[in-house]
Amino acid sequence: MNKIIECVANFSEGRRQSIVAEIVAAIGGAAGVSVLCAESDSDHNRSVVTFVGAPRAAAEAAYRGICVAAASIDMNHHRGQHPRVGAADVIPFVPLRNASMAECAALARELGARVGGTLQLPVFLYSEAALQAVNRELPAIRRGGFERLRDTVGAGQPPQPDFGPRSLGPAGACVIGARDTLIAFNVNLNTEDTAIAQAIARDIRESSGGLPGVRALGMFVKGKAQVSMNLTNFRVTSMGAVFERIRHQASSYNVGIDSSEIIGLIPREALAEASAAQLRISNFSRERLIEHHIGAGDQDLETTGQSHQIKLR
Amino acid sequence: MNKIIECVANFSEGRRQSIVAEIVAAIGGAAGVSVLCAESDSDHNRSVVTFVGAPRAAAEAAYRGICVAAASIDMNHHRGQHPRVGAADVIPFVPLRNASMAECAALARELGARVGGTLQLPVFLYSEAALQAVNRELPAIRRGGFERLRDTVGAGQPPQPDFGPRSLGPAGACVIGARDTLIAFNVNLNTEDTAIAQAIARDIRESSGGLPGVRALGMFVKGKAQVSMNLTNFRVTSMGAVFERIRHQASSYNVGIDSSEIIGLIPREALAEASAAQLRISNFSRERLIEHHIGAGDQDLETTGQSHQIKLR
Repeated sequence: MNKIIECVANFSEGRRQSIVAEIVAAIGGAAGVSVLCAESDSDHNRSVVTFVGAPRAAAEAAYRGICVAAASIDMNHHRGQHPRVGAADVIPFVPLRNASMAECAALARELGARVGGTLQLPVFLYSEAALQAVNRELPAIRRGGFERLRDTVGAGQPPQPDFGPRSLGPAGACVIGARDTLIAFNVNLNTEDTAIAQAIARDIRESSGGLPGVRALGMFVKGKAQVSMNLTNFRVTSMGAVFERIRHQASSYNVGIDSSEIIGLIPREALAEASAAQLRISNFSRERLIEHHIGAGDQDLETTGQSHQIKLR
Repeated sequence: MNKIIECVANFSEGRRQSIVAEIVAAIGGAAGVSVLCAESDSDHNRSVVTFVGAPRAAAEAAYRGICVAAASIDMNHHRGQHPRVGAADVIPFVPLRNASMAECAALARELGARVGGTLQLPVFLYSEAALQAVNRELPAIRRGGFERLRDTVGAGQPPQPDFGPRSLGPAGACVIGARDTLIAFNVNLNTEDTAIAQAIARDIRESSGGLPGVRALGMFVKGKAQVSMNLTNFRVTSMGAVFERIRHQASSYNVGIDSSEIIGLIPREALAEASAAQLRISNFSRERLIEHHIGAGDQDLETTGQSHQIKLR
């Protein structure tokens, strides 16, 4: 069975496109890897490269990208809206097809050992790959950014890396892990007042009692206040639900929504969930989708043979 | 190549569930047919049965359903919110996989000849199966309902049927045709004032200068004013776009939206279009969907091998 792993690698460079292109080329140069999406944001000063491949291929590609980033980006001179701790900032592996979370966690640990040993970068294993409970949550590692982590690691305070030196050099740290599909979703408000985005982020984020599966920060991006989010469980809190909550909160400040954006890829189902929520479809279920009944692939022309009758009401 | 045709048969019975069950059983009893969805609405007093199969199988199933409906439903005693002209009211065939519109039109004409000849029902061929230009548009045939059509057909005025007797008996007429996928989408307003739904329907429908690909009526359903719609081209006017327009129009009457509902099935892509519009995703494209890159079927485990890089911005 052909295993497919997705890697959504985040690098702390979103302005010098030659460096981003070099990172993408290094990743894409690994045999058996497809780069699906590469995006840079100059305000975040950050790029996200999404690629897929078999487990070994994905890990090799990630390693090559980390090498280029660590050699090219000096965190002492990095400025950006997005919290970050290293040149090759966060490298999560996601099980996409026929691969388990345990395999992704093992892959992350192997890569971590290699990056710590060969490249001599401090490596933090996070989320499902974490070896220390204190490193499980990414925001906890990243809070205060490179500058704080450099100081705390140097002072021997937690969080401490799992591999590599116990000090941060110019390339900073590398956070490697395994996680489920996550939706990176940013909503831009029709205001320049970042304080409003921050207040809304506080209201919606799970950690302060908001919506389950939502991480959120308020930032200033492209001349607008932005609510920048990670949705870790779109089946529980969909893009539609979070959008409506932001719209509602923003309206209490007399502020509208300008636009939104997705970073990286999303599962098709996430849009279906979002849409059903926003359209307030009272009778929605997957059985409503024609593709649920007919072989989903364009090449698969058989009916499923199942007769899912939706309720007679 | 295995051809799959969808049929979305509309019957003028939504209250007596024993009759609906009999119609569904007759349709499902045809070999090679899968009934995907059967729904009744007591206010519309109407049921919609969605089924799929090879062309011959779908036509046979439709014929069986028409037989039961024509024998069980007396249009002289039918009352309902939805415009209708017969017991087996509208029978459209939709090309789903490896079938052309021309094949569906030919199927509709064959079925029409059989229903007109054997069952002695007046049959109107509509949409892509129409033989008379005046019968192309369903709303034109249906305007004024059974009562008007009975009178005009009897008086020899247009529209006249293509097959069967030139008079309407208790089973009324049967409108058979071929068309593209259509989304039946109803939005319920937080008001009992049907006039508001009617005003909004006038505003949004294409025929009065509204949104392209939108047919709309205002009705009173389940204690609420309802905007009942057909979207004939969701790529031009999505469910999201029409929902936002209704929300905007309703707010000018100080009325909110209660909920919405889909009748029958929709293509998955329709939700993606709706969601992208409603979420105001500025950077959406199909390449954003993971499934676009990975074999879509759950059984298809290969990557597509293509590397669609989304723009570096």
